[in-house]
Amino acid sequence: MEPPGTPPDAAALAKRYRAVRAASVALADPLSAEDCAIQSMPDASPAKWHLAHTTWYFETFVLESRAPGYRPFSPAFRVLFNSYYNSVGAQYARPDRGLLSRPSLAEIRDYREHVDRHLLAWLEHGDADATARHVLWLGTHHEQQHQELLLTDVKHLFGCNPLDPAYRETAARAVAPGDGTGPAQFLAFEGGAYEIGWSGSGFAFDNEGPRHRVWVEPFALASQPVTNREYIAFIDAGGYRDPGPWLADGWTAVQQRGWPAPHYWRQRGDRWWTLTLGGLREVAPDEPVTHVSFFEAEAYARWAGARLPTEAEWEIAARDVPVEGNFVESGALHPRPATAHGRRPAQLFGDVWEWTRSAYGPYPGFRAPEGALGEYNGKFMSGQLVLRGGSCATPADHVRASYRNFFYPDARWQFSGIRLAQDAGS
Amino acid sequence: MEPPGTPPDAAALAKRYRAVRAASVALADPLSAEDCAIQSMPDASPAKWHLAHTTWYFETFVLESRAPGYRPFSPAFRVLFNSYYNSVGAQYARPDRGLLSRPSLAEIRDYREHVDRHLLAWLEHGDADATARHVLWLGTHHEQQHQELLLTDVKHLFGCNPLDPAYRETAARAVAPGDGTGPAQFLAFEGGAYEIGWSGSGFAFDNEGPRHRVWVEPFALASQPVTNREYIAFIDAGGYRDPGPWLADGWTAVQQRGWPAPHYWRQRGDRWWTLTLGGLREVAPDEPVTHVSFFEAEAYARWAGARLPTEAEWEIAARDVPVEGNFVESGALHPRPATAHGRRPAQLFGDVWEWTRSAYGPYPGFRAPEGALGEYNGKFMSGQLVLRGGSCATPADHVRASYRNFFYPDARWQFSGIRLAQDAGS
Amino acid sequence: MEPPGTPPDAAALAKRYRAVRAASVALADPLSAEDCAIQSMPDASPAKWHLAHTTWYFETFVLESRAPGYRPFSPAFRVLFNSYYNSVGAQYARPDRGLLSRPSLAEIRDYREHVDRHLLAWLEHGDADATARHVLWLGTHHEQQHQELLLTDVKHLFGCNPLDPAYRETAARAVAPGDGTGPAQFLAFEGGAYEIGWSGSGFAFDNEGPRHRVWVEPFALASQPVTNREYIAFIDAGGYRDPGPWLADGWTAVQQRGWPAPHYWRQRGDRWWTLTLGGLREVAPDEPVTHVSFFEAEAYARWAGARLPTEAEWEIAARDVPVEGNFVESGALHPRPATAHGRRPAQLFGDVWEWTRSAYGPYPGFRAPEGALGEYNGKFMSGQLVLRGGSCATPADHVRASYRNFFYPDARWQFSGIRLAQDAGS
Amino acid sequence: MEPPGTPPDAAALAKRYRAVRAASVALADPLSAEDCAIQSMPDASPAKWHLAHTTWYFETFVLESRAPGYRPFSPAFRVLFNSYYNSVGAQYARPDRGLLSRPSLAEIRDYREHVDRHLLAWLEHGDADATARHVLWLGTHHEQQHQELLLTDVKHLFGCNPLDPAYRETAARAVAPGDGTGPAQFLAFEGGAYEIGWSGSGFAFDNEGPRHRVWVEPFALASQPVTNREYIAFIDAGGYRDPGPWLADGWTAVQQRGWPAPHYWRQRGDRWWTLTLGGLREVAPDEPVTHVSFFEAEAYARWAGARLPTEAEWEIAARDVPVEGNFVESGALHPRPATAHGRRPAQLFGDVWEWTRSAYGPYPGFRAPEGALGEYNGKFMSGQLVLRGGSCATPADHVRASYRNFFYPDARWQFSGIRLAQDAGS
Repeated sequence: MEPPGTPPDAAALAKRYRAVRAASVALADPLSAEDCAIQSMPDASPAKWHLAHTTWYFETFVLESRAPGYRPFSPAFRVLFNSYYNSVGAQYARPDRGLLSRPSLAEIRDYREHVDRHLLAWLEHGDADATARHVLWLGTHHEQQHQELLLTDVKHLFGCNPLDPAYRETAARAVAPGDGTGPAQFLAFEGGAYEIGWSGSGFAFDNEGPRHRVWVEPFALASQPVTNREYIAFIDAGGYRDPGPWLADGWTAVQQRGWPAPHYWRQRGDRWWTLTLGGLREVAPDEPVTHVSFFEAEAYARWAGARLPTEAEWEIAARDVPVEGNFVESGALHPRPATAHGRRPAQLFGDVWEWTRSAYGPYPGFRAPEGALGEYNGKFMSGQLVLRGGSCATPADHVRASYRNFFYPDARWQFSGIRLAQDAGS
Repeated sequence: MEPPGTPPDAAALAKRYRAVRAASVALADPLSAEDCAIQSMPDASPAKWHLAHTTWYFETFVLESRAPGYRPFSPAFRVLFNSYYNSVGAQYARPDRGLLSRPSLAEIRDYREHVDRHLLAWLEHGDADATARHVLWLGTHHEQQHQELLLTDVKHLFGCNPLDPAYRETAARAVAPGDGTGPAQFLAFEGGAYEIGWSGSGFAFDNEGPRHRVWVEPFALASQPVTNREYIAFIDAGGYRDPGPWLADGWTAVQQRGWPAPHYWRQRGDRWWTLTLGGLREVAPDEPVTHVSFFEAEAYARWAGARLPTEAEWEIAARDVPVEGNFVESGALHPRPATAHGRRPAQLFGDVWEWTRSAYGPYPGFRAPEGALGEYNGKFMSGQLVLRGGSCATPADHVRASYRNFFYPDARWQFSGIRLAQDAGS
Repeated sequence: MEPPGTPPDAAALAKRYRAVRAASVALADPLSAEDCAIQSMPDASPAKWHLAHTTWYFETFVLESRAPGYRPFSPAFRVLFNSYYNSVGAQYARPDRGLLSRPSLAEIRDYREHVDRHLLAWLEHGDADATARHVLWLGTHHEQQHQELLLTDVKHLFGCNPLDPAYRETAARAVAPGDGTGPAQFLAFEGGAYEIGWSGSGFAFDNEGPRHRVWVEPFALASQPVTNREYIAFIDAGGYRDPGPWLADGWTAVQQRGWPAPHYWRQRGDRWWTLTLGGLREVAPDEPVTHVSFFEAEAYARWAGARLPTEAEWEIAARDVPVEGNFVESGALHPRPATAHGRRPAQLFGDVWEWTRSAYGPYPGFRAPEGALGEYNGKFMSGQLVLRGGSCATPADHVRASYRNFFYPDARWQFSGIRLAQDAGS
Repeated sequence: MEPPGTPPDAAALAKRYRAVRAASVALADPLSAEDCAIQSMPDASPAKWHLAHTTWYFETFVLESRAPGYRPFSPAFRVLFNSYYNSVGAQYARPDRGLLSRPSLAEIRDYREHVDRHLLAWLEHGDADATARHVLWLGTHHEQQHQELLLTDVKHLFGCNPLDPAYRETAARAVAPGDGTGPAQFLAFEGGAYEIGWSGSGFAFDNEGPRHRVWVEPFALASQPVTNREYIAFIDAGGYRDPGPWLADGWTAVQQRGWPAPHYWRQRGDRWWTLTLGGLREVAPDEPVTHVSFFEAEAYARWAGARLPTEAEWEIAARDVPVEGNFVESGALHPRPATAHGRRPAQLFGDVWEWTRSAYGPYPGFRAPEGALGEYNGKFMSGQLVLRGGSCATPADHVRASYRNFFYPDARWQFSGIRLAQDAGS
């Protein structure tokens, strides 16, 4: 299967490459070498590993394959920083990524500079054909995914520390609550045959295609994500004590892990506080709830007499909405309250990833590409759920209406939130 | 949501009730009290528990709620034999079902007779309105599900025993290989908008509706399930040693559990043997492969250059096919080779459940019914995959084209098999 | 190393053999085939397994090795019922002993009769030299150990069953509290060099020798075991909530397992009930506390300002005390209150095994015998603690002052109790 | 119970305090902040944690309790760096010590300086009575224990890293093999009543007393520890494949963990290499084997027709031997081959800790001190084995003949080795 999109020319690619690479380094700036070395759970990776693995991508898939005479920075890195590409070879065990005090953060910075220098020289030299440019283009979007993970993984690490460290003091500053937003409205959409999936010439991951027809019944989508105020009402109504609205696997998760509230929430007296990337803060009622699992999103929706949207419904609602919102560039690093909005869904992009009820699977006609990069997305198509729309930790130019993010239903360390849907007439 | 189907009148229901109840007892006939008491893994239940729980259903949802003056056989059974109905109350822990040497099998038989007597008297007395009859009707289909589980759970227990016990010596007798079947053909189906889901007046579970429209691209479906001969070729080609065709979670399962072949298979020299309900037997090349997980089905399909069908595709192909085949009544208790067939898919019903690539979820417009029976199906709609068509352990009048069975992707102890599909033109 | 003791002649051995074998069968009489088949935890074995394994001992170590022409009852049993003898060969996995619904209890009874018939014939034939008679003699004591385990393992199984089954209704009948016993006295013993370990011609296990000298400081030993009344005071004083008196590993056990009291205890209102082999009963204050781990015994002793005795102290105190008490033959199957006693320790034998603070290890000069029977005791000499004196489930002619029982410090399913000791002058 | 020993006067204590504190910092010199932050297994702690916890000891037990007006460096440290003192209060979970990227290594250094300044000022001020000086004295020995752990924990961390990092390039340099040592001799010791345990006025831990009498049979002790050459013969003879010589728990450990050799050993072709604190090196045949568990030591001894010594035997043999040897000050950080020696045991002190067969328990008359420091040693007296003599990572002035180290029988990350013993005449 041909990869989607038409890659930019060499000059535009070099510009994008420089910008993305610089952004990663900038994200690590507030962190010490110690912060960057530790892995707080098997699902998370140390910041240093993110900085190295994204570099490994370019070294392995571009320089080693396509730049004649290139010598790897360190042969051991081929295994150490291979995430999951069996076609490339052995991998250092994922749960042990936090055991690598060596190479040091400083060495990883050197590694990045080494690869950047060689890659830009190769690109400038003009040897990159369309295929090569596509691999490189994909690498920049790959790195943007790891930028978001770097932030959420560091947040998880800080969430284990009784000192409540802040990533950046200026993050997650309270903003004035939205005026005139009031409670969410349900906005109606017509049923019928639609096309979804990526189209056009811009970048997309392979899993966003092929574009294909779906049949959708009439539905309604909430005008904004569920807020903390609404979610606290669910908690206060015994949401975490009554199995009624939960999926069976969700209720098992609640009981086995003793979840009393979204991740990072802590009760002090009758008030809820939460750790943010700006430190510990009281939960702001008007902000979208975040750090909830699919199980919690599903239970909340059922409790509220609604349901989660399918990914098709979400994409249909989003296809004409400009990709604007609270992305990583805002510096907020935390979802913001909705402001006044009219008859269209607000905050579809940015703020919080929105759980859908759609299992992550292949679109009709999907085939993973040949070669190692065929392992990028396709082999994860079981057991996970699709999330849409990006978050406050996503780079703005990384997301689009057809973008499919995916996580296991119990994952809570991403900026994941809830948007309700309904069947028409319900 | 109204439950689907129109329940039979009292006389017809009583007849069906008697037949189903007798069938359960007959299935336990070849088993000793010891065979019926033991639980060989948390996913399986002792035969005795199946006999008791299906009785508990009628006692709890019919007699206790609707038969005035009924006194429970034993108050403790309310908890002991509640499977997962939180609305009914506490449940004895599922993984501990095998610790109940008391009540004895004899007491459970008494329990069954007690409930049968009272239930039939109540039914005869004419107090059963349509709702009550629907609950009772559902109970007979519920019991049929447990009949199949009783067999697969006993097979799992015997599979742990080095003595290779047989459930019934006459089961799984080799039959003459199919004549003229040859390799499977791919049969073409047109794309377009179809309706799927249950319709009519017969019985269906709530999860089979609402009937709704889907858009399907042109596809092809294999004329018969994958055979042992074909699957052995996959094994011989290194299928369990090469991560290439596997989903990531599937490859993890292969490695962590050391799967070398389908469940119950054992290699002796260069030949494969398998435990059947008739004892240990050499693997017959022409029989459909069974006791494979979704992960194995998926990997096999990719290795074979095909894919699994979606549940919509399967149902479209099956909707005009008569529900005939190798069901539990044949006594084979093992899949049989295909015999000559023409231009339509063979063995869609019976022999082996066929994994689809569809995650088990709610159809558009689905809502779980109010009350405890709303817990029957809806709360399991995450993490599992849909299987279609019934198996050699399914009662013949239990299955239909819209029937949705579901298991986790690593489950292997059901009679689960593989039917391949393809995109048109591939 | 020569095994201790001089075996009886053939006639006496045959008499003992018959008596011991009959006693095992009698113990299983109150049990159904289902009761005998189930394994409630890895440390316990099904009653059926005990009946089979003790038979396997005689078949393997006597008949197969020494009776020419003997044909095994079933070749598969060699593996199925081998407990842990690597020298004999492979073993069916211990945690899976409860998966063997076949062979049936009836078949195991046939197995016992087969082996008994052959063994007695061989013995009568007069071919048994001293070595063979010693192995046979050991087998009868081995079987007595399994008789006790059969009872404690069944009790554990029944303890998992919400129906609170009784093994025998007449067991654990309340008896009149001891008159004039009052609280325990500390009885003084002189320090100095003593000899401990087995001597004489009677039976002993290899681990009871060689007899050797130990130096003991002056000490005092409680005149009776700790009672339920005393132990409840410990619970009421926060014994299970305050880490103060606990060993670190003990406190970890309390927290991880949530122990609130001895095993089988259940609180109803402000009273304690306990499951006994006679069914559920209120805890009797004057009875010795039982079903406590070493960790609990140790913590209780420290809380009470005392300590546990060493095994040498215990043996010194017991060496001139007749082996009399509440053993399995009493039919009580539960410890009994102390009755009036004078200046010597009461209840040293029977009622409850008494935890010592001595780690189970080899006596000076100990060497395990050559051959498979060298695996009997020696290889377990790490990680366990010595208990002394026998219990209400021990056959009376099985125990003696030098007898060393041993269990891991967290074990609670034996009839284990507490006798306090003190340093002189403390 | 009075603590043993007479503490030095204030000036001498200040001198010792300065030296010990400086030694800890020096040990961390070759390490980066990343090296110091990571925890490679629950039993190990990050170097940063060792530096902080030893400081916490002085702050908590000296300054907070005894220095009026002292203000803690950071209130949060009271919990963060409390190891296991329940009397002091809550503790940050041990397995999570590696999640604390904050406080940084630099802050911990500040913490150390803060406490050192205040403590030395307080000491100089002359307020320290004998009790206070004893607590301080104990703190310096406590810190020396953590110095050794810092090294062994870092070695474990580096052992997880495929880059084979060296702690110090100059460590573990091969030295000339011992001349004239040849195989070990067994040196005879007479039996009888001996006194063991600490005596005198020097420092000792509470667990080294009370001094008491023991009865010991005649025995022989090997003149030197078991060498790598000898241990490789055990491996080559199938030592890790034959259950014969193993304790049951030891054999379970071998199988579950797949041990093929001592920790840090790696086979390349037919040669063994090992990670040392100086990097990867071929195993030197004449060096004492190290990084073996008690289970391995025990199995080796039985295979070699010998046994491990008891701790009493070891102490009797060592009591007149000067405390000299290869300690941490040598800079070797690795055991060295034996050199020529006469009729007395060599290398009793330094090189490798020597496993004894003695379970770690209280000496007769032992009572833990009142107060928090009573938790120092006493509560660990179950499940562990005593090791004697110190290692190449032990400070020279930290060890003595009566010193009792203790670890669980499966621990391999200490510099633990084997010295054989025999019964006289065997």
